[in-house]
Amino acid sequence: MKRGTREGRKSHQNQTIFFQNSPRIIGAYTVVGKKEATGPLGKSFSHVMDDEYFGEKTHEAAEQKMFETAIHGAIRAAKLKPDDIDMMLSGDLLNQITSSSFAARSFDMTFVGLYGACSTMALTLAIGACMVDAGYISRVVVSAGSHFATAERQYRTPLELGCQKPPVAQWTVTGCGGTVLTLANSGPRITSATFGKVVDFGTIDVNNMGAAMAPAAADTLTNHFRDLNIGPDYYDIIATGDLGAIGSTLLLRLMKESGYNLSGIHTDCGIEIFDLEGQDIHAGGSGCGCAAATFAAYFYDRLRKREINRMLLVPTGALHSVVTMQQGESIPAIAHAVAIENSK
Amino acid sequence: MKRGTREGRKSHQNQTIFFQNSPRIIGAYTVVGKKEATGPLGKSFSHVMDDEYFGEKTHEAAEQKMFETAIHGAIRAAKLKPDDIDMMLSGDLLNQITSSSFAARSFDMTFVGLYGACSTMALTLAIGACMVDAGYISRVVVSAGSHFATAERQYRTPLELGCQKPPVAQWTVTGCGGTVLTLANSGPRITSATFGKVVDFGTIDVNNMGAAMAPAAADTLTNHFRDLNIGPDYYDIIATGDLGAIGSTLLLRLMKESGYNLSGIHTDCGIEIFDLEGQDIHAGGSGCGCAAATFAAYFYDRLRKREINRMLLVPTGALHSVVTMQQGESIPAIAHAVAIENSK
Repeated sequence: MKRGTREGRKSHQNQTIFFQNSPRIIGAYTVVGKKEATGPLGKSFSHVMDDEYFGEKTHEAAEQKMFETAIHGAIRAAKLKPDDIDMMLSGDLLNQITSSSFAARSFDMTFVGLYGACSTMALTLAIGACMVDAGYISRVVVSAGSHFATAERQYRTPLELGCQKPPVAQWTVTGCGGTVLTLANSGPRITSATFGKVVDFGTIDVNNMGAAMAPAAADTLTNHFRDLNIGPDYYDIIATGDLGAIGSTLLLRLMKESGYNLSGIHTDCGIEIFDLEGQDIHAGGSGCGCAAATFAAYFYDRLRKREINRMLLVPTGALHSVVTMQQGESIPAIAHAVAIENSK
Repeated sequence: MKRGTREGRKSHQNQTIFFQNSPRIIGAYTVVGKKEATGPLGKSFSHVMDDEYFGEKTHEAAEQKMFETAIHGAIRAAKLKPDDIDMMLSGDLLNQITSSSFAARSFDMTFVGLYGACSTMALTLAIGACMVDAGYISRVVVSAGSHFATAERQYRTPLELGCQKPPVAQWTVTGCGGTVLTLANSGPRITSATFGKVVDFGTIDVNNMGAAMAPAAADTLTNHFRDLNIGPDYYDIIATGDLGAIGSTLLLRLMKESGYNLSGIHTDCGIEIFDLEGQDIHAGGSGCGCAAATFAAYFYDRLRKREINRMLLVPTGALHSVVTMQQGESIPAIAHAVAIENSK
């Protein structure tokens, strides 16, 4: 195991929570769109929508239904019923996280809304693990998701305008992932979570989210390694959320400057989920659903099959809004890391 | 002590978390606008802004500065420095909770964004209490706030239009409250928190938030009483967040139907903070800042002076957005209850 170094740093505040009881992920379910289904991970997803409306009248209603479906599915996959679940933790990209809140009406369980932009899946997993690990609740369902059409309308331009994206832009994943956490005897364990700090390097190009978020990922990763006194190769895979091709290159460079070599260990959900060239995706996938669906389908499956045994999921989020962009503000970003491991 | 009854109900899922170590609120700070300062609680607030821009160029930047000021102030009031704080929990009404996220750039601490509309202060207090009570972190600063001008522009109409409000409407509080929680020997203790479920009675009038939120408050209150096996008179004061005059009347009626008499014990932050008639406020105050500032100033002060010794703070939130309203959706609501008590 390569050890990280704390030399040369004056002080270090621990940002990591260690879970003594290691809550297990006992069920997962994903809903994605057709574009995601025809990508490299297509076979991993639980449900593919026939079209982007999912039988609803609006894209927003479709996104809400994606949450309902993913949450019901995750609970079913855990061989439980909704009545067995104490709490729902969820968030999404829409203003006032309405996809999550509106979906919560369908479930007779307490609800906590979280917002960390595309890092939201990490927040729900980490806070959910805290609640279960401490014994406050027995079972929690956590979810995050996004929809290409609702995100484009809200953050960029309505699809009807047919605007062209610059090559640095990313493609919002139409996907939702839900998982159930509890104390159990089998299933991948959540062993620690490193909460991130808000980082702002002054980036103002809202088309280049990867560049805005890479420093936040580097900050959280560095702190995770120091808190655990480990190096990157402790993990079989370190998967950032949606840095895409550009952000990932920047992350590897930033980490190298801090003395950590991620090559061969790092991947990014936004690179894994699409065939960047073949599907005309530009810099990669993005959105809350990118890390949520990729983790809850592809990585969770690989963990269960013990193809990987230790992974660090590091979803990243750009915390701007349309108003802050229009007012000329820069783009703050954040990343939270969640360690998921198989028992030996 | 009047005991609640569980008769007549088939099953009851516990929604309440009891804090064994009872985190204490060791410092609080509030920032409000001039209208709030000239209201009945004016003398309670820590800082009054000279104008609604707070020295900034936009109302949004002013709101962000309110958070920075309230958080710094709360940490100072707790006789601590920002470096002593492990985590910041915060949320607000703006799209993508940018006031909180952008303010978090100023602090070298981990950040978790929460969204529960006007119930957000309860979420931050409750999750913050969980994190400290379980021993995951030592000290947390929690905050919530709102600004009349940013809320009007985002949810309703720009101020420049001079639109008239109907009598059932409420007035968004320009205010921000921050508090610091830790395990300590003195200060009001957080003893329990009842997380709410999303309730939707089909209300579609976005001008009448009180009516939309009253059923959520009733649901959470009823569950709180059942979980603790107590009646309303266990508390000196039960303060809902921003039901206003109309919502409060509805709440009392709904609670009476459930066998609980709140009269003489219940008040509402949205009624306390303004002189409804004299300040032309219509149905009362609202916004994340309503419960946050009223609690962190007025009620916290009364708790410290032992004028009250047991209070239940029940901030309520309407979980709609402009888009859901325009799409004809109803207004889901939620309420979370936090019990704050003095040691005997």
